[in-house]
Amino acid sequence: MSKDGFLPPAGTRDIEPAAAEIRDGVVYKITSSYKKYGFNSIETPSLEKLENLLGKKGGENEKLIFKVLKRGEELKNSLGSGTAQENDLADFGLRYDLTVPLARYYAHYKDKLPKPFKVFQIGNVWRAERPQKSRYRQFTQCDIDIIGDPAPNCEIELIYVTCKTLQSLEIKNFEVRINDRQILKKISLDCGVTDDGKYRDFLIALDKLDKKSLDDIIEELRKKDFEEAVLSNIKNVFEGLKTGKNGIDLQAGSSSSDEKYAKACKELSKIISSVKSLLGNEVIRFDPVLVRGMDYYTGTIYEVSEINGSMSFGGGGRYNNMIGSFSGQDVSACGFSLGFERIMDSFFSGAPLSGGGSKAALLYSSDKDDYCAVTLFSEKLKEKYKTVSIFDRQKNMSNQLAKLKDIGFDSWGIYKGEETVISKME
Amino acid sequence: MSKDGFLPPAGTRDIEPAAAEIRDGVVYKITSSYKKYGFNSIETPSLEKLENLLGKKGGENEKLIFKVLKRGEELKNSLGSGTAQENDLADFGLRYDLTVPLARYYAHYKDKLPKPFKVFQIGNVWRAERPQKSRYRQFTQCDIDIIGDPAPNCEIELIYVTCKTLQSLEIKNFEVRINDRQILKKISLDCGVTDDGKYRDFLIALDKLDKKSLDDIIEELRKKDFEEAVLSNIKNVFEGLKTGKNGIDLQAGSSSSDEKYAKACKELSKIISSVKSLLGNEVIRFDPVLVRGMDYYTGTIYEVSEINGSMSFGGGGRYNNMIGSFSGQDVSACGFSLGFERIMDSFFSGAPLSGGGSKAALLYSSDKDDYCAVTLFSEKLKEKYKTVSIFDRQKNMSNQLAKLKDIGFDSWGIYKGEETVISKME
Repeated sequence: MSKDGFLPPAGTRDIEPAAAEIRDGVVYKITSSYKKYGFNSIETPSLEKLENLLGKKGGENEKLIFKVLKRGEELKNSLGSGTAQENDLADFGLRYDLTVPLARYYAHYKDKLPKPFKVFQIGNVWRAERPQKSRYRQFTQCDIDIIGDPAPNCEIELIYVTCKTLQSLEIKNFEVRINDRQILKKISLDCGVTDDGKYRDFLIALDKLDKKSLDDIIEELRKKDFEEAVLSNIKNVFEGLKTGKNGIDLQAGSSSSDEKYAKACKELSKIISSVKSLLGNEVIRFDPVLVRGMDYYTGTIYEVSEINGSMSFGGGGRYNNMIGSFSGQDVSACGFSLGFERIMDSFFSGAPLSGGGSKAALLYSSDKDDYCAVTLFSEKLKEKYKTVSIFDRQKNMSNQLAKLKDIGFDSWGIYKGEETVISKME
Repeated sequence: MSKDGFLPPAGTRDIEPAAAEIRDGVVYKITSSYKKYGFNSIETPSLEKLENLLGKKGGENEKLIFKVLKRGEELKNSLGSGTAQENDLADFGLRYDLTVPLARYYAHYKDKLPKPFKVFQIGNVWRAERPQKSRYRQFTQCDIDIIGDPAPNCEIELIYVTCKTLQSLEIKNFEVRINDRQILKKISLDCGVTDDGKYRDFLIALDKLDKKSLDDIIEELRKKDFEEAVLSNIKNVFEGLKTGKNGIDLQAGSSSSDEKYAKACKELSKIISSVKSLLGNEVIRFDPVLVRGMDYYTGTIYEVSEINGSMSFGGGGRYNNMIGSFSGQDVSACGFSLGFERIMDSFFSGAPLSGGGSKAALLYSSDKDDYCAVTLFSEKLKEKYKTVSIFDRQKNMSNQLAKLKDIGFDSWGIYKGEETVISKME
């Protein structure tokens, strides 16, 4: 078998000891922070019934589901028909986010859960993306959600706890940008975009505003049969938003006759002023061109990223209709998801997590030394060293020590009973 | 959608807040213990290439792999042939244990890893078992392994660290039973079982010795075309093993002319006496009828379970050929796997993990109170309470408190600024 045959599937990866150690530390800090604020941990399985994953307005992600082949008789029957299509052959799928399983969970347990239910989940999700650099097909999400409360206090709390969590990881250079789908809807209506399909194209175009020229964006919309009058409106509005010269005024909007729009403006103002008073002025700002991909958002949307940097740490928003898509009864819900790999990347490019304590390797001779005596002696060393591990001393000891250093050992010694000396590795 | 539709796939389950809290604590304790002894954490993805999961001597488990449907053009091509079989339609599979991915990992990274490599993994595995009570299709394993060392010191260390880990979880009533595949081979040869297929049937029969009558076992073997002379030998030997009147004497075996057998007897004696001297006489015993299911074991096999109870906490053994099945070059390897769900079951039936600190709910009025002031006040309470979470006070406050208590809150108070009083829940 070629050496590549020992790699995991393209787009997935093995986590080596040094990185795994940091991941453990980061998970521990995030978990501690979420718990401190009274969010309850739940776990849902990686597999969901396929019908529960499809049709949940997951946008592009629904096309990226890894589907699990039926088994035994059921598979035989599907294959036997001779005309089996993709979805006839699969019954389960790997979850593509943690929000859909949470909505299913809540729909099942709602009668016994407090209202609002504050919940967190840390778990893997899978998306069958085309493999490419730093885009993974298995990755970890850390989500907090508040279910059953329509008030903007939820957004304040989710943003506050997420920011406190990033700070507990010694990440400081971040800001939250916030918007509301009702504001985007109002902008599109003002431009004359009235049909739902066109609204989707409008959002995709707006989302490209910081990456493409305005002319290119308008050209793309022209190909999608937008009327010239509408295109001209869009061009004016986008120009105003891009330059900031003609933005959205939340205060003025709060007294608009469009009730949904006025409510969104009022709530955004409250969220922004509250977060500023809790965490400082630089932590949050209104961003009328923020879109976010999922179709399931119904109100606020937000993203947290590096200031002046391209790295996004995570995002979220309000999704008041998703639980209803299971139970038939809409329930207010709002969440904030941190992308674990992004946070890990920031550790590898910047300040590592402090501490962990000293890690000592005790070398002994399996021919000469009594294994039990060495083990008992190593237990004594644990009073001083956080980790002590015993290794049969090899002929090429400098090579042995170099490799132990690579996986995180910082101290070593040769077993000589009570006279053993432990030194720092060089 | 019916209420059952909100459940996850049969055989998998949601973990509710109270159980999730205990799971987090157990994972933390196991991780801390493994790390203290210098085992390095790695993570491998849940998905493996299907060809890397098949043909690894995983026994029955290879038949239980959840296979992942190919995607896009590849799937179209496979379906288009009109004669597609199960394995033509799938390219990846969910791992059924952590040992096969570890062997693949080691085959890839071996040049940069220290020898021996002491490693641990905690992760989910999946098996498409027929759903039934307390048999899960997704469950968590906690494995430690030592790779690259053929000496019985590995077994001593793995058993020692596993026992210390169980003790750190306040599980005390356990014992390790140990055997060696070479001893089983010798017993079978002595009975006249010479062919490999029959050897497998012989092991399956031996494994049933504590569940079925000897006559039934012999009858089953008779149906599998064992010769009468061999059956009569097996009956005598099994009878001796079952009653303990005619067991295996490790000391006598150590000087046998069958070299492999003599080596196994010597090593077992050493392992047993060392573990006894480290942890006490009652912790380990030789069990010549212990078999274990996986075909990949080549030497020692062991299991840790409740004394006088039926619950098995985990097991493991030596698998010297598996890494070679990837790299073509055999590497000594030995592991011990704890079954996480079994440990959790023992917590729910016995002593829970101690502590965690107090969890307080602060009720406020979203109409009257300033949200930011309440949040800042709750931060002050965190000096005294491990968790503080704020909730909008509901009309039916006793119902609200009862549900908060259900998910673990033990204290509560109504926000009144500096005059707030926090009391224990009743």
